[in-house]
Amino acid sequence: MDAISVIRTKRDRGELTPEQIDWVIDAYTRGEVADEQMSALAMAILLNGMNRTEIARWTAAMIASGERMNFDALSRPTTDKHSTGGVGDKITLPLAPLVAACGAAVPQLSGRGLGHTGGTLDKLESIPGWRAHLSNAEMRHVLDTTGAVICAAGDGLAPADKKLYALRDVTGTVEAIPLIASSIMSKKIAEGTGALVLDVKVGSGAFMKTIEDARELASTMVALGTDSGVRTVALLTDMSTPLGLTAGNALEVRESVEVLAGGGPQDVIDLTLALAREMLDAAGLKDADPEKALADGSAMDVWRRMISAQGGDPDATLPTAREQHVVTAPASGVLTRLDAYDVGVAAWRLGAGRARKEDPVQAGAGVELHAKPGDTVTEGQPLMTLHTDTPEMFDYALKALPESYDIAPAGTSFSPLPVVRERIA
Amino acid sequence: MDAISVIRTKRDRGELTPEQIDWVIDAYTRGEVADEQMSALAMAILLNGMNRTEIARWTAAMIASGERMNFDALSRPTTDKHSTGGVGDKITLPLAPLVAACGAAVPQLSGRGLGHTGGTLDKLESIPGWRAHLSNAEMRHVLDTTGAVICAAGDGLAPADKKLYALRDVTGTVEAIPLIASSIMSKKIAEGTGALVLDVKVGSGAFMKTIEDARELASTMVALGTDSGVRTVALLTDMSTPLGLTAGNALEVRESVEVLAGGGPQDVIDLTLALAREMLDAAGLKDADPEKALADGSAMDVWRRMISAQGGDPDATLPTAREQHVVTAPASGVLTRLDAYDVGVAAWRLGAGRARKEDPVQAGAGVELHAKPGDTVTEGQPLMTLHTDTPEMFDYALKALPESYDIAPAGTSFSPLPVVRERIA
Repeated sequence: MDAISVIRTKRDRGELTPEQIDWVIDAYTRGEVADEQMSALAMAILLNGMNRTEIARWTAAMIASGERMNFDALSRPTTDKHSTGGVGDKITLPLAPLVAACGAAVPQLSGRGLGHTGGTLDKLESIPGWRAHLSNAEMRHVLDTTGAVICAAGDGLAPADKKLYALRDVTGTVEAIPLIASSIMSKKIAEGTGALVLDVKVGSGAFMKTIEDARELASTMVALGTDSGVRTVALLTDMSTPLGLTAGNALEVRESVEVLAGGGPQDVIDLTLALAREMLDAAGLKDADPEKALADGSAMDVWRRMISAQGGDPDATLPTAREQHVVTAPASGVLTRLDAYDVGVAAWRLGAGRARKEDPVQAGAGVELHAKPGDTVTEGQPLMTLHTDTPEMFDYALKALPESYDIAPAGTSFSPLPVVRERIA
Repeated sequence: MDAISVIRTKRDRGELTPEQIDWVIDAYTRGEVADEQMSALAMAILLNGMNRTEIARWTAAMIASGERMNFDALSRPTTDKHSTGGVGDKITLPLAPLVAACGAAVPQLSGRGLGHTGGTLDKLESIPGWRAHLSNAEMRHVLDTTGAVICAAGDGLAPADKKLYALRDVTGTVEAIPLIASSIMSKKIAEGTGALVLDVKVGSGAFMKTIEDARELASTMVALGTDSGVRTVALLTDMSTPLGLTAGNALEVRESVEVLAGGGPQDVIDLTLALAREMLDAAGLKDADPEKALADGSAMDVWRRMISAQGGDPDATLPTAREQHVVTAPASGVLTRLDAYDVGVAAWRLGAGRARKEDPVQAGAGVELHAKPGDTVTEGQPLMTLHTDTPEMFDYALKALPESYDIAPAGTSFSPLPVVRERIA
């Protein structure tokens, strides 16, 4: 077995054998297959694809590269959610405590933002004292005592994926459905959850720009999960416009707490409840009532315990950015478009996101929206407020933003896309 | 400008801009673009192709990465030949002195063998004392005083190509026509020859297995040469069966000397003369008579002077292998197939070639043929003799060889392919 023959097989549109896949993942993890060989293979996979059998084996080999967690000893059924990433996507924050409040255990391993999409860990780190990095024992303890934990994945989980993900990031090979699917699912299966709901974003602010691509990614991942004994469901959800009214770290924590307090924007509430129902259903808790758990404060109670258990102060004042700039509507009418990607890029450049993995993020930076598609606006009213510690970035954001929205004459009829567009099981 | 955007352009089937090509070749040579990024780009080029404009710029950028030689001060016109490599292809050895004997200057930069094809430098190094590595001044001196020089390319010539070639070799990205064409032509154009004849091999023992691929490679290279002011012609020549009756280092030197002495196998004589005529024609020496220069010993005189000038003893006894094994014909009839690739692999494994660049080669090892396609053979007569210093390799060669030839009933009519199949100018 050698790297060149594996690369050639995929280059020449052949099917990789189970032995080739097991060998190449293991040899890459051990450093016997070099980065330049794996990147050539990744490009061949991106351009020539992998079939379901190959993707399943690839995923299994990445799981086998590290440890596998097991929560069978917990008294509650485990259920988890994964989002493919979007702008203003703070859903994990209210969702994990909400589902825990309804009787499930939620072992949520999360990531950081890169580019225009935010990261759950970056958001939570704006809470003073909160720690993302837990040992396996600490993670289990928080899960046991509060019902939910949101933390960084340990180094022992799917190390092959960690190495390959970093490589794909610098070699233009991120956008390959077989590689995205196996990357996500190897971590989620190794994490040991019994049920999994996938939130596959579709639209300008998402990786998947078309519903067809989103469907392919979703059905690939559902098949991978199901075949590995994880009850897996996917919702395809809209990411043509930002979720809720905020994109940024502390800004999104504040909005999440509003939702847990029974308020918050309707689209965030709707998606949180839709995902909660799927997670509880997949965990076998068919009678749970997440709407009640939001209304009666029990989800908020879990949130407070969960944040405290990881060193955070749920009552602390959240950081705010040093400077604000208000963007006003240039005309009166109906807001018919507010582009998720453009708002995400503005929030990123204002300091909410990072260009390189090692960059810091600003806790207070981001974009606050005062209108969403479908709303009527009046000339001169605030459309959005930009927040940053580095006001020299206002110029950049202001240059890009006029292209990001459309205002149609008053009275124009407009119906926004539903938040949940399709369900794949 | 960054590596990922260049990779993405080609990944998504776009055309690389001149600025992208100049930048990526220069940044790769300087080490700013990493090996894993260049290999992903090479795979994207292999699978998505480059158009003529891109290939020309890519070649120019590789030439610009190093020094460019200039032989304008010579009193004779320069002309060179490049073969894409085959089994038993010793043509450079008699050809360079023959063309020099007819009045041209032949600055022949050659390479080493890798895999089943032999290398000109490996062959000449079987002559005791002969040196492949010359300084630019030494190379010019040998060329000036003898009319021909065969030596290794200096490190200053197209360093981008050197680095990229080594990378392609380990990443399954060798077989890309745009990359093969630009690799060959960047070295030949930087070498400063005024005229160039390309011997593009086609058949089982060649890189190009089909006449269509060979045509595409040849016409790509002819266009590149012509556009750079080098008078360039290509011959597509047969490599379905080995050239001549030997594949190996000292074995091929012996056969080359036979040709220079007025003997040797007909196919080697024919191809040497065909290429000599093209080289002389391209150099503007239309009245030269290479047939006469072979017959009257003047080509042999240049050979002896050229070998001596590089430290070799033209009268030395050539090394022979320690052990021989004769393969006999299992039946009587007409030999209708003798596969170039299989014979090449046998010679390679017997020790004539190397598996890795740093491996040594055996001077005496190889395969000697006693019959060629079209010949009548009698059961029990010698078909080939295997030569090696490592007789444990006989088993390997003997296992592969029965598949390498066909003997049809006596009287079967059979016409071998002509050596020269097409001409592209």
